Amino acid sequence: MNLPRIAIDAMGGDHGVRVMIEGAALARREHDRFKFLLVGDEERIKRALDNHPNMRGASEILHAPEEVTGDEKPTQALRRARKTSMGMAIDAVKKGEAGAAVSGGNTGALMAMAKLSLRTMPGIDRPALAALLPTLGDTDMVMLDLGANTDCDARNLVQFAIMGAAYSRIATGLAEPRVRLLNIGTEEFKGTEVLREASEKLRAADQRLALSFGGFIEADKINRGEVDVVVTDGFSGNIALKAVEGAARFVADLLKSAFQSSLRSKIGFLVSRPATELLKHHLDPNNHNGAVFLGLNGIVVKSHGSANAKGVANAVAVTARLLEEDLIDRISADLARGTDTAPAGQAA
Amino acid sequence: MNLPRIAIDAMGGDHGVRVMIEGAALARREHDRFKFLLVGDEERIKRALDNHPNMRGASEILHAPEEVTGDEKPTQALRRARKTSMGMAIDAVKKGEAGAAVSGGNTGALMAMAKLSLRTMPGIDRPALAALLPTLGDTDMVMLDLGANTDCDARNLVQFAIMGAAYSRIATGLAEPRVRLLNIGTEEFKGTEVLREASEKLRAADQRLALSFGGFIEADKINRGEVDVVVTDGFSGNIALKAVEGAARFVADLLKSAFQSSLRSKIGFLVSRPATELLKHHLDPNNHNGAVFLGLNGIVVKSHGSANAKGVANAVAVTARLLEEDLIDRISADLARGTDTAPAGQAA
Repeated sequence: MNLPRIAIDAMGGDHGVRVMIEGAALARREHDRFKFLLVGDEERIKRALDNHPNMRGASEILHAPEEVTGDEKPTQALRRARKTSMGMAIDAVKKGEAGAAVSGGNTGALMAMAKLSLRTMPGIDRPALAALLPTLGDTDMVMLDLGANTDCDARNLVQFAIMGAAYSRIATGLAEPRVRLLNIGTEEFKGTEVLREASEKLRAADQRLALSFGGFIEADKINRGEVDVVVTDGFSGNIALKAVEGAARFVADLLKSAFQSSLRSKIGFLVSRPATELLKHHLDPNNHNGAVFLGLNGIVVKSHGSANAKGVANAVAVTARLLEEDLIDRISADLARGTDTAPAGQAA
Repeated sequence: MNLPRIAIDAMGGDHGVRVMIEGAALARREHDRFKFLLVGDEERIKRALDNHPNMRGASEILHAPEEVTGDEKPTQALRRARKTSMGMAIDAVKKGEAGAAVSGGNTGALMAMAKLSLRTMPGIDRPALAALLPTLGDTDMVMLDLGANTDCDARNLVQFAIMGAAYSRIATGLAEPRVRLLNIGTEEFKGTEVLREASEKLRAADQRLALSFGGFIEADKINRGEVDVVVTDGFSGNIALKAVEGAARFVADLLKSAFQSSLRSKIGFLVSRPATELLKHHLDPNNHNGAVFLGLNGIVVKSHGSANAKGVANAVAVTARLLEEDLIDRISADLARGTDTAPAGQAA
């Protein structure tokens, strides 16, 4: 299959152009069918490309005079979207000049621009940000929404479940991913009215959808390998994801200082190195980089601002996978199966 | 000072009477001024006491014919509160027969019974569940609410901040604990309207209160030692706390399997044992057991359902500390300083 090229917002991300280009080049070293539209300051992109001969013939530059800053308000960034590398990368997807866009910039601005330019898919009220996260099981799990929507209603959550399951099927190959709603208890009466309503709707639609709904799940159980899709509003999802990241770093820091606490421990550390390296590899967020905005008429992937080149390459690989597997068509087909999920205004 | 006795709900907790009594006895071995009112099935308590001669003369039994089950709805448990070990332990606090109550039972039922029997303090609209959690800094931090209130308004959050700071001052000795609101970003425009309003109120009252308000904090930063009190609604607080617990267990499990992955790693594990034991001790939730319901006219402490005897002893020690330091008087005094926090109905 002929893979459409991927637009890269070369200016987004904490480490600037150099790391974005290095990441794209790294991804291309593993999959030489990847082609890129590099959007940003032409001079700086050209200079960064000098170090990567494998990008020659595989990339085109689209000059953007401005860039979105990390602390800019989304509403403010929207006003000058057309001149920014982020806005122009998304616009290239809209015009069909690229198949998908990847950015490491301001998440709120990316969401706002992507929504305005690409619009939500028929059947979806609001897009959601989804990521693949590691578990103790054999496959990764999908979690969404991770911060696109602070408040959600039951209908939003049902749509997130359908989109998350489509993503999980692509990522894991499972026919009916196990879906749960994040809550503060598993009993049916626990949590908010919105969660109870979403649970009822999903239970009722379960037979029609390509997923297996298992009710509520608590935040300490999400990475045990017992669930493939964790559905939540963007506030709780963001809190849970960051709490997990912080706790993992906390334990790693404690382990480090424990290993430095005595000579015996230092020797033990040296002997155990292969084990701790394995752990480090497993926990490195760069190996799980690339969160997807689901529910838009186009694929937009958010790379973590602090991602290194390996992380950017991972985000590019995720993007290519979603293009190859026709994520958007799959979501459309799944939405057609769950009749309760028509957007407000259409028949309910 | 003469420490008032502590009422123990001997029937609560996953491991039953034996562990609750063993925990009380363990606490008393370290502090022989502790005295107890043991509430529950008289025969079973007597049998459990046979193994703990140090409890003789330091404990009285109050027979309770019934007990609250773990999956019981709070409203259901409330109806038979007077006959249950949980309800009778709380009632003993109300009647002045005990200074505080400790239970390892159903959190929702404990909250409902404590609220109905002890009532909220003047100046507090809703009580909150608070816990001390480990950080990378020198002192523990207080986090609240951890699940008592699914929805909160700005006024609730301000009151939680004042109560949490009072608890932090007792636990850490700091004159002005650093207080932050949990949010999905640190910029002022981030999060919900409720959070933005609470932030403004706290910023305005900061000078009058014995705390230092620092705005918002994200969930990945809470355990870095940069904050002493993390304030949030009960839904997000519960999600964050459980996500941290789950992630810590996740990393520990990965580390274990990494250490078993080769002979070299196994040897490394044996050599590193002192380091990993140190980590294990630091992460053992029993060492941080004992969450407090703040804002009631009496002290009620929740011990984790799965706590072992060491965990129960820790919850008892937390309870004694709060009694000795007059937590409730301190909160009253702090509330009087923050005039914006009068309960609905009084002058705003």
